Amino acid sequence: MQSNIPDIVIGRLPIYLRALTRLSEEGHEVTSSHELGQLLGISSAQIRKDLSHFGGFGKQGTGYQIDYLIEQLRQVLKVNREWEIALIGAGDLGRAVAHYKGFKDRGFHIACIFDSSPDKVDKKLADLVIQSTDNAPRVIAERGIKMAMIAVPAPYAQQVADMLIAAGVRAILNYAPISLNVPENVRVQYIDPVVHMQRMTYYLTP
Amino acid sequence: MQSNIPDIVIGRLPIYLRALTRLSEEGHEVTSSHELGQLLGISSAQIRKDLSHFGGFGKQGTGYQIDYLIEQLRQVLKVNREWEIALIGAGDLGRAVAHYKGFKDRGFHIACIFDSSPDKVDKKLADLVIQSTDNAPRVIAERGIKMAMIAVPAPYAQQVADMLIAAGVRAILNYAPISLNVPENVRVQYIDPVVHMQRMTYYLTP
Repeated sequence: MQSNIPDIVIGRLPIYLRALTRLSEEGHEVTSSHELGQLLGISSAQIRKDLSHFGGFGKQGTGYQIDYLIEQLRQVLKVNREWEIALIGAGDLGRAVAHYKGFKDRGFHIACIFDSSPDKVDKKLADLVIQSTDNAPRVIAERGIKMAMIAVPAPYAQQVADMLIAAGVRAILNYAPISLNVPENVRVQYIDPVVHMQRMTYYLTP
Repeated sequence: MQSNIPDIVIGRLPIYLRALTRLSEEGHEVTSSHELGQLLGISSAQIRKDLSHFGGFGKQGTGYQIDYLIEQLRQVLKVNREWEIALIGAGDLGRAVAHYKGFKDRGFHIACIFDSSPDKVDKKLADLVIQSTDNAPRVIAERGIKMAMIAVPAPYAQQVADMLIAAGVRAILNYAPISLNVPENVRVQYIDPVVHMQRMTYYLTP
């Protein structure tokens, strides 16, 4: 199944999941591709087509059972479990990420935090003790951690990525404003506020 | 032109722009929809179709002149100028955003920073003096600021958004893990690391 589905479709599933979770929290039990589309600015045809890759999950005319669809999407995305994440960098951004309240119940858990500054090592951050980046390869390999977030200054991001990949990391969320070179078996996503801002200026009148 | 183009297409243009800028920085002068597609994991047909909304920018068989395409996309996205941004929140995340190196030459400039904590007001942050959030409506209206970033704790995000919109803001980048309710003439984008993480777990073997 996996190889047939375009990554761009996979990329929309977490957005559907977020909207469905919101609807569920607001007390809704059923939704439609039309309602979801309105919420997200995506056509209902696109949503039906995306979900049809995985079997559909809804009946024509009766809409989607929200909690069932949430469960199915969590399973498809493999977030019906908790993934351990290594966070590299305990500066302003690393601290903000460590305290981020949005991970809960969405499949992720920051398991260890590393920084290269002696001022930060052994200090506490969000219930964890910051460790030296020198320990990262061993800790990541021992715990079998597959995911990491890079929150170091741009000039260090590539070397940190190389280290993480050598230790076994296969998915990286990069906050540094730099493109990473990684092997084909490693996924990278970028947190780039500018991409989001540029999507909005199109609609603005100066 | 504007009303005919799906937002999902507009959303891909900043990603093309980022990839093209990278190619240009690496010394490339010409690219193709095929090369761009390889870089981005998007089909070359999709890229050609997206760009055709704006006239195409390339000739069959000769590819795209990178610098010309960058200039055209900057014009379409209205980032061939600098937009002033109001940043609300000077905690860990606000500080990280204020120091973010990725805004330069991409159309944005943080013009003012607000925080509601007396401990932070009047302190310097990234060459600006943090102002009381009480001043935000006046400053935003006077300067005609249309864009803002919300980096406050989730429970305050909606009231901050309401205040910004009343002051004239029409585009909000929200870092708080909460969906905002806004009028139809206001755009919101979310920085949500979980959406990016969930897009990668699909490909991982636990």
